[in-house]
Amino acid sequence: MPDQLFTYQQLFDFTRSVFLKLGCSEDHAEIASRSLLSADMRGIDSHGIARLSGYVRLWEVKRINAKPVIKIIHETLSTAVVDGDSGLGLVVAPYAMQVAIEKAKQAGTGWVSVQHSNHFGIAAHHAMMALEHDMIGIAMTNASPLVAPTFSIDRMLGTNPICVAAPAGNEPPFVADFATTTAANGKLEILQRKNEEAPMGWIQDKDGNISTDPHELKNGGALLPLGSDREHGSHKGYALGAIVDIFSAILSGANYAPWVPPFPAYVPMPEQQPGKGIGHFFGAMRIDAFRPAQDFKKHMDNWISGFRNCRTISGQQKVLIPGDPERESELARKELGIPFPASVVNDLQSLADKMGLELIP
Amino acid sequence: MPDQLFTYQQLFDFTRSVFLKLGCSEDHAEIASRSLLSADMRGIDSHGIARLSGYVRLWEVKRINAKPVIKIIHETLSTAVVDGDSGLGLVVAPYAMQVAIEKAKQAGTGWVSVQHSNHFGIAAHHAMMALEHDMIGIAMTNASPLVAPTFSIDRMLGTNPICVAAPAGNEPPFVADFATTTAANGKLEILQRKNEEAPMGWIQDKDGNISTDPHELKNGGALLPLGSDREHGSHKGYALGAIVDIFSAILSGANYAPWVPPFPAYVPMPEQQPGKGIGHFFGAMRIDAFRPAQDFKKHMDNWISGFRNCRTISGQQKVLIPGDPERESELARKELGIPFPASVVNDLQSLADKMGLELIP
Repeated sequence: MPDQLFTYQQLFDFTRSVFLKLGCSEDHAEIASRSLLSADMRGIDSHGIARLSGYVRLWEVKRINAKPVIKIIHETLSTAVVDGDSGLGLVVAPYAMQVAIEKAKQAGTGWVSVQHSNHFGIAAHHAMMALEHDMIGIAMTNASPLVAPTFSIDRMLGTNPICVAAPAGNEPPFVADFATTTAANGKLEILQRKNEEAPMGWIQDKDGNISTDPHELKNGGALLPLGSDREHGSHKGYALGAIVDIFSAILSGANYAPWVPPFPAYVPMPEQQPGKGIGHFFGAMRIDAFRPAQDFKKHMDNWISGFRNCRTISGQQKVLIPGDPERESELARKELGIPFPASVVNDLQSLADKMGLELIP
Repeated sequence: MPDQLFTYQQLFDFTRSVFLKLGCSEDHAEIASRSLLSADMRGIDSHGIARLSGYVRLWEVKRINAKPVIKIIHETLSTAVVDGDSGLGLVVAPYAMQVAIEKAKQAGTGWVSVQHSNHFGIAAHHAMMALEHDMIGIAMTNASPLVAPTFSIDRMLGTNPICVAAPAGNEPPFVADFATTTAANGKLEILQRKNEEAPMGWIQDKDGNISTDPHELKNGGALLPLGSDREHGSHKGYALGAIVDIFSAILSGANYAPWVPPFPAYVPMPEQQPGKGIGHFFGAMRIDAFRPAQDFKKHMDNWISGFRNCRTISGQQKVLIPGDPERESELARKELGIPFPASVVNDLQSLADKMGLELIP
């Protein structure tokens, strides 16, 4: 069966109607929809509307508060801690990133750690808010415990992504957004749907043996930190995931390590709760707090064109600049629509039926 | 021939005398010696006194200014740009990190980008300066172009290390310090000395073929970004190295990408110089700009003991906390002395002879 195409507006209207049905304000429903659908536009299919029913499930079990009072609970000139009040991370994250941007306007940089939140979609959507202000944007979050540190069989960390977005001049911005694991969980989900094997070095089984079965996570297996094994630097991927956890949760008072409340239904809720909800961390650095923005952008253009003009390995594609594939996806999907496989369309239709909504009015 | 043991004081006296001979002030000679020898103490043998003759070589070709006027050339409440005036990175880096710490005292956080510097030794030495102030310390630097981005044969980035140091309570601090490549260049140097093969996934030859010959870098080969290949996430290692380059050099006005002045003698000086010297980036975040330091430390202790108590894969060692191996090395070397192979001792003796100094008076 061929993929079915939707326009952005169709997806937006449906997503917004779902969030309104949960009890979100008009404002929050629109912010959340934009956050969620930025993933579909950028080609990160695992993090977009395909997860909408997952958010609804968390709301049903009362882990998401549709009417949160999001607020700053501590601050200095360049820092803040935000309490997300159990709201959708899709709403809490843009709020916190805006706080970071306002701090940066005053103090040169702004850094916000967030407690009591939920899954925030893709990091790039939030980090990129800084770009129009001629700032570098940074976003990271901890996530469902699915990753084993080097030498271990215990799932102690999430895929804990990091995004850094930096403006350029004539070139498009540099936007690096990546999980600190060899492969993001979303890539594994795609293999699960297709029943295809995963490459060696992505996952291990419950005893720590290398496995290529993408279903291992449902049997107690684990994702591996970036680097895959000790000889190839998995201790560095583990350290990166740990840094994200510390900045996002130990600085803010959120849950951390194996105690992060999970998103997937198959991961049990941890018995212990050392903090509140999940944690995020955001940063904004005003370029002209360091040097004139025009100088920075001119050198970013030079940097980018240097990499674009690299000699490639025989038979390989051109060198990419972080953010290239996502930007190309966005351009194509704006023009052609966003394709979904039948499994996702069926899931959305079930959600629409359950909530008494029309998928496409 | 067995390794020869030296005490820290012996190494310090010799190193200090070399830097004094170059024309450094008493103050700078001591700061530089402490920076350099922190690598030997922490077991990062590639970055310590074994490189002293490399620093002297750079001074001989007038790339190091022994009497730099290091100064802040731009600043805001939470940021600064430091001009290292071609000084030893071993001196410039502690200066800049101190600026970050002072900014953090006032504004909650401090962020310093550095231009016109040289190789700064190990990142951890500088980042850890923040710990005694109950701050998180961050240090990174760009470096000699030896790393090929994914799909390319051109050496466009350095090993561009990142260090994050965070205080704990009863536990020792968390100190993650790692190159953004699969293996640090120093590890390759050790294999070169022993004439041993490198594991697959560390390096490629000048045409982009996978190689296990540790001498490839001298023949136009390249180190690979963390992740090794596209399927295992090398685009993430490439992005990390790029982020370090942008923060260290494009924010400050230093050289970047393939135009970074190289440290090893076998890498030619780039013809183009879009900036000044090499670049570093430092950060300091006051813990109590987010939450009370005691709360943070209590949860860091809980985080650390959670990881220490992980179940290990059968036959594997216990899970390590970032910083464990280096701290154990430091304890052992304080007690037993620091061992050097004959090749390093001979190199130091030659340096002593050349400069009219005694290696051990």
